[in-house]
Amino acid sequence: MQNKKGVFITLEGSEGVGKSTNLAFIQHWLSERGLQPVMTREPGGTPMAEEIRTLLLQKRQETVSDKAELLLMFAARAQHLDTHIIPLLTEGRCVVSDRFTDATYAYQGYARGVDMSWITQLETLVQSDLRPDLTILLDLDIETAFKRVARRGEADRFEQEKTDFFDKVRSGYLDRARQEPDRFAVIDASQSIETVQHSIADVLADFFDTRAEP
Amino acid sequence: MQNKKGVFITLEGSEGVGKSTNLAFIQHWLSERGLQPVMTREPGGTPMAEEIRTLLLQKRQETVSDKAELLLMFAARAQHLDTHIIPLLTEGRCVVSDRFTDATYAYQGYARGVDMSWITQLETLVQSDLRPDLTILLDLDIETAFKRVARRGEADRFEQEKTDFFDKVRSGYLDRARQEPDRFAVIDASQSIETVQHSIADVLADFFDTRAEP
Repeated sequence: MQNKKGVFITLEGSEGVGKSTNLAFIQHWLSERGLQPVMTREPGGTPMAEEIRTLLLQKRQETVSDKAELLLMFAARAQHLDTHIIPLLTEGRCVVSDRFTDATYAYQGYARGVDMSWITQLETLVQSDLRPDLTILLDLDIETAFKRVARRGEADRFEQEKTDFFDKVRSGYLDRARQEPDRFAVIDASQSIETVQHSIADVLADFFDTRAEP
Repeated sequence: MQNKKGVFITLEGSEGVGKSTNLAFIQHWLSERGLQPVMTREPGGTPMAEEIRTLLLQKRQETVSDKAELLLMFAARAQHLDTHIIPLLTEGRCVVSDRFTDATYAYQGYARGVDMSWITQLETLVQSDLRPDLTILLDLDIETAFKRVARRGEADRFEQEKTDFFDKVRSGYLDRARQEPDRFAVIDASQSIETVQHSIADVLADFFDTRAEP
């Protein structure tokens, strides 16, 4: 992306890994450092993209075609990027998104078996060369994650998927992290919340210290 | 498309050219011939695709990114094709759609200036090699079309566009028809309704007679 002065950070992980709590921690950490982060999420992040999110997460009798689901994800992403994220990055702001394209690879690609080349094509069409500067992946075994989700109440359409599905999501995320070790920081989310947040703080400090170097 | 036994006919044209009236005529003509046509429309044609249509046609304060609009169009199309049109064509049915991908080229490509190569990419991704067997284009000068639309009451988001926009839509459609003369039949919609329907009947008769030849 030309004229990108800001920093784009994404937080990834399956249901139940503790994204919400840790997003609040990341926001706090960045604010303390004087960065005034803009927190957002996918699918969503603008009124129209949130409407697309509702459409995607709805339980429905109609079978949703894999391609339709994938295109809706990228429609929401295009709207989010073009009208919110890119203008903010151009202004030099720090943007933190709860999920981004790695989630599409993990959920639609690795877990649902959608052709990876379709995802790559749409990624290029929608993002050109824009990629997150840093991606924090919260990794957790499926059993623990499920227990946490069950405690939260009713499951949405995605959360109703089988254990096997989430195994594929998890290994998909880990595979992506192995492919791009410079961008990804993988954090063991089975540890105590204090230990997880200590690790996140270390990752962020390293990231910003490295960027600050001449 | 493999295993395609049916016939896929699309009706195209800008607002006010008389699509609704002539769709009813086409349905009647095909039924008389014993074809039991399935009539559908784009964007839409399934409950979920109709929800996407509502989202697209809504007037909203938020600026809609060109890419988001294009991806929503193709998301609705993927759902429509995968869950409705393709199964019907595989069964050997005759499907008639009020608009299809030529409308995307005309509206998003020619009129809104969206990169044509994006549309081509998405067309290939969503449709593979499926194209309409016959496309009837109702062509009408903008002034007459606008008078007809004005009579119908309030304009939606697309109908609020300027005259210049509809000039580009019209010439876009005509350009596509010139590029694929075997698939397109262009009908002058400024003529009396009887003359227009006589022309449509001729086009349909020619089409089915040619197909029936050994």
